[in-house]
Amino acid sequence: MPAVCDPVGPTTAAFPLVAREARPQGTVVTVRGVAIGGPGVVVIAGPCAVENERQLLATARAVKAGGAKMLRGGAFKPRTSPYSFQGLKEEGLELLALARAETGLPIVTEVMDARQLPLVAAYADMLQIGSRNMQNFTLLEEVGRCRMPVLLKRGMSATLDEYLLAAEYVMKGGNDQVTLCERGIRTFEPSTRGTLDLNAVPMLKRRTHLPVLVDPSHGTGHAWMVPALACAAIAAGADGLLIEVHCDPPNALCDGSQSLTPEEFARMTTAVAAIAAAIGRVAPS
Amino acid sequence: MPAVCDPVGPTTAAFPLVAREARPQGTVVTVRGVAIGGPGVVVIAGPCAVENERQLLATARAVKAGGAKMLRGGAFKPRTSPYSFQGLKEEGLELLALARAETGLPIVTEVMDARQLPLVAAYADMLQIGSRNMQNFTLLEEVGRCRMPVLLKRGMSATLDEYLLAAEYVMKGGNDQVTLCERGIRTFEPSTRGTLDLNAVPMLKRRTHLPVLVDPSHGTGHAWMVPALACAAIAAGADGLLIEVHCDPPNALCDGSQSLTPEEFARMTTAVAAIAAAIGRVAPS
Amino acid sequence: MPAVCDPVGPTTAAFPLVAREARPQGTVVTVRGVAIGGPGVVVIAGPCAVENERQLLATARAVKAGGAKMLRGGAFKPRTSPYSFQGLKEEGLELLALARAETGLPIVTEVMDARQLPLVAAYADMLQIGSRNMQNFTLLEEVGRCRMPVLLKRGMSATLDEYLLAAEYVMKGGNDQVTLCERGIRTFEPSTRGTLDLNAVPMLKRRTHLPVLVDPSHGTGHAWMVPALACAAIAAGADGLLIEVHCDPPNALCDGSQSLTPEEFARMTTAVAAIAAAIGRVAPS
Amino acid sequence: MPAVCDPVGPTTAAFPLVAREARPQGTVVTVRGVAIGGPGVVVIAGPCAVENERQLLATARAVKAGGAKMLRGGAFKPRTSPYSFQGLKEEGLELLALARAETGLPIVTEVMDARQLPLVAAYADMLQIGSRNMQNFTLLEEVGRCRMPVLLKRGMSATLDEYLLAAEYVMKGGNDQVTLCERGIRTFEPSTRGTLDLNAVPMLKRRTHLPVLVDPSHGTGHAWMVPALACAAIAAGADGLLIEVHCDPPNALCDGSQSLTPEEFARMTTAVAAIAAAIGRVAPS
Repeated sequence: MPAVCDPVGPTTAAFPLVAREARPQGTVVTVRGVAIGGPGVVVIAGPCAVENERQLLATARAVKAGGAKMLRGGAFKPRTSPYSFQGLKEEGLELLALARAETGLPIVTEVMDARQLPLVAAYADMLQIGSRNMQNFTLLEEVGRCRMPVLLKRGMSATLDEYLLAAEYVMKGGNDQVTLCERGIRTFEPSTRGTLDLNAVPMLKRRTHLPVLVDPSHGTGHAWMVPALACAAIAAGADGLLIEVHCDPPNALCDGSQSLTPEEFARMTTAVAAIAAAIGRVAPS
Repeated sequence: MPAVCDPVGPTTAAFPLVAREARPQGTVVTVRGVAIGGPGVVVIAGPCAVENERQLLATARAVKAGGAKMLRGGAFKPRTSPYSFQGLKEEGLELLALARAETGLPIVTEVMDARQLPLVAAYADMLQIGSRNMQNFTLLEEVGRCRMPVLLKRGMSATLDEYLLAAEYVMKGGNDQVTLCERGIRTFEPSTRGTLDLNAVPMLKRRTHLPVLVDPSHGTGHAWMVPALACAAIAAGADGLLIEVHCDPPNALCDGSQSLTPEEFARMTTAVAAIAAAIGRVAPS
Repeated sequence: MPAVCDPVGPTTAAFPLVAREARPQGTVVTVRGVAIGGPGVVVIAGPCAVENERQLLATARAVKAGGAKMLRGGAFKPRTSPYSFQGLKEEGLELLALARAETGLPIVTEVMDARQLPLVAAYADMLQIGSRNMQNFTLLEEVGRCRMPVLLKRGMSATLDEYLLAAEYVMKGGNDQVTLCERGIRTFEPSTRGTLDLNAVPMLKRRTHLPVLVDPSHGTGHAWMVPALACAAIAAGADGLLIEVHCDPPNALCDGSQSLTPEEFARMTTAVAAIAAAIGRVAPS
Repeated sequence: MPAVCDPVGPTTAAFPLVAREARPQGTVVTVRGVAIGGPGVVVIAGPCAVENERQLLATARAVKAGGAKMLRGGAFKPRTSPYSFQGLKEEGLELLALARAETGLPIVTEVMDARQLPLVAAYADMLQIGSRNMQNFTLLEEVGRCRMPVLLKRGMSATLDEYLLAAEYVMKGGNDQVTLCERGIRTFEPSTRGTLDLNAVPMLKRRTHLPVLVDPSHGTGHAWMVPALACAAIAAGADGLLIEVHCDPPNALCDGSQSLTPEEFARMTTAVAAIAAAIGRVAPS
């Protein structure tokens, strides 16, 4: 008392495709040559939203210089209010492709809906399913029919069982290039945007063969907290990080308060590299 | 301490369309002649999923006899596991139309995705947006372009601000026939499926002009709890109820444990009618 | 999925004394002739804190006139901040005794600590264990050795199992005059002080023979919400209510924003009486 | 949206004694020569409960050999059920004193009630206030009048504001030797006992000058998860760890499933030392 369900029995019955038992050695998801889930720790970084060419290119160059291996950036933005900036849409995708051409960084960007999929898939190297869509089963099935890597973020109040079953939907479609990402859960605490759930890291690593990333930017909502939680995530066994960086956070169109400056980002990756080395993993170079 | 934000100031700025101030007299949503949000209390009932003709018609006749004014039933089912019954899809819609023809009850059924909308809209009298899709903004926008009544269920961990903004998305598209529905939130308590949040009823009624229903079936997960919470919901000021009823709960393909039998449903509506009368509302017939 | 534990099996093993099976007919707790848990619905009302003679007597007379059968008021106040008003302590107890002499209403007041027990027990008719002390096991054992009625409030994040086990501690000491009280649980919603959990009412009534009250004042934090939730609680099957009333809420030393005026309280008890009658219970006077 | 309160303004007004501003250089709590909150990372370890001489001495020697600087062990045990093992009480305190004599490790043990304080203080080097007593204000005040170090664990659903105010109660009594400890909060996730909240670490370090420990044993409930979260806690900036270790976990009288064996503990401290070195802190030994 309180009773705790034993989560470590054979879960093959409920999650035949994602269960660790189905692939004990683990899955490595490869995005244009960047391996997620291998010995190395991968950092994906970029702005919350693509705002314009200058902002995106400046940020992309900065995150590459700071150690990021992939670029993130939203073209289609799921916003709580219909009156908030909704993203540049196709123009944003074109700018992401431009940033990729400039920096060589593969790009991950969100697809909000099955109908958008052909368009987004034409530009992206990895498709992000956002937290609010973790149980958009139509979208999961559609993405399962793609042969592109998927970054599936955990819902804000999803249990780990529900999260694994969302991944099962994608794999059932035939796509096993799925990466998970813990990004903060909803609790009673008002001083942070979410509560980053690092329990999820070892639990997911034990229960599934899929790679597990952590997003401390959304998981805290405060830029100054991001480096500490980024280090903690890697120490807990995460395969990498998703970090919001902006070339000018005070003037960001969204999530400025949780975005690192390029300088802060570079210091963070240095700290993360030391942690990675301490646990015997390859540092994010 | 603990500080509580005052939610009762003018919210017109953040929610210009859904705020109570925008329509102080309240909105009545009318579905084939059934008024939701007027003086009467409306009961919508039916099975979780449409399973076959016999099950649906038996249940539809029973809920009509028991006092329901509309029929609910899922043809497209958002299921946590890809291995659970996913609904009869278009065949389920046809059966719902048949049940309407037989009983005269308008039908509400879930649309899971913008692409499904034309199909579902061809059969339904009211479109349900499920909890997992409360922030599927593409779907909200698409439904906002329809001129059909919408039943927008609250997300399992949505704050009331987020919920009102989801409704704002629909109204911003031009569709003001929106009905809200509290259906249980996620808490730490393991003995019930959700925790039915009846605080939400007076709070939503104060903050918005839209009608507010309550779904005690999902909000508890136990059929034996449904009548007590149904009465409580009406006493709290809800405009109606969404109730799962099945002609044979032990053999239901989903949610049997939370489905009332026709007899239990008829007893429930009698109890609800007494509560409605006690607070000066028109009883559910 | 999500799996819901069945809470309705025989719980005699874990809760031998509080389980419904141990006393299927239910327990009636009697406080100076006021029966809690019988056919009638009981309203207990009064100020959050005893402030001075004038405030307490004015409020006591008003709640008696408005239908209350017992007076509540805090002399020892558990406050989140050490810099908030901590209560009048023994002087407060003396004023409560004076109010009882004036109005004939039995009094319930909080005991915060085993050492305070002899003092508080010398004045009170019923001992309140506050939410923060629901698992103060030393206090529970000490109160179990008393032969006085106990009002045991639910902890802010206590599961129902934990709550029943706290009551088991008191009964194990030999005191079976225990009344439970749901008062709002902690969730992610910021617009109310707590989320009143009315699921708890039928669930507790099924699992235990002890009476169950509801406190919508703490469960919402807003006076204007109290009447709606009070009605809902009775409709859900609660045996009574605990309501904060103050003769002058804007000038209350604590919890003014959730305190009803005497006029609001009288209107509330009229509404509650109608609900009680509608479900076949004796109204509160 | 969702708005996040800014927690980083001057909090001196609400928390004059515990606020970081009151002592920018930080507090070092010293327990018989062991410094908590200095450059070094401190590991406190031992069994959940003192069971007998053999068990305690074996475990105490093992944790000392494994790098612990202090011994933990419960003599008075706050148990959810009155039928669970309640601790050896004074006999347990005597055994703790014996273990200290044998190993030289200072001891920390829980005091559940103001009346127990003289007895517990006669044996302990540091007084633990457990999670369920975080808002037992009488006990906080009494401990504030002591001149002994205090380990104040966070309540299972306490906001950080509430937690800091509980520490303020102790400091207001004149005792500034307070150490905080995050030990898992209550969320909707059923697969772990609690959700370890590592957001709390940088947030508390910024807002208060008091040292911050983390207890991953209670924060996860699974021994196999403890090392990963212990490393994460140190990476996040915690000043040390509280770890449950038992010489024979399968036969422990409580919390066996979350207790490390001596061998697992020794491996954990090695891993933690590497993390501590990576962030420039002195390793635990």
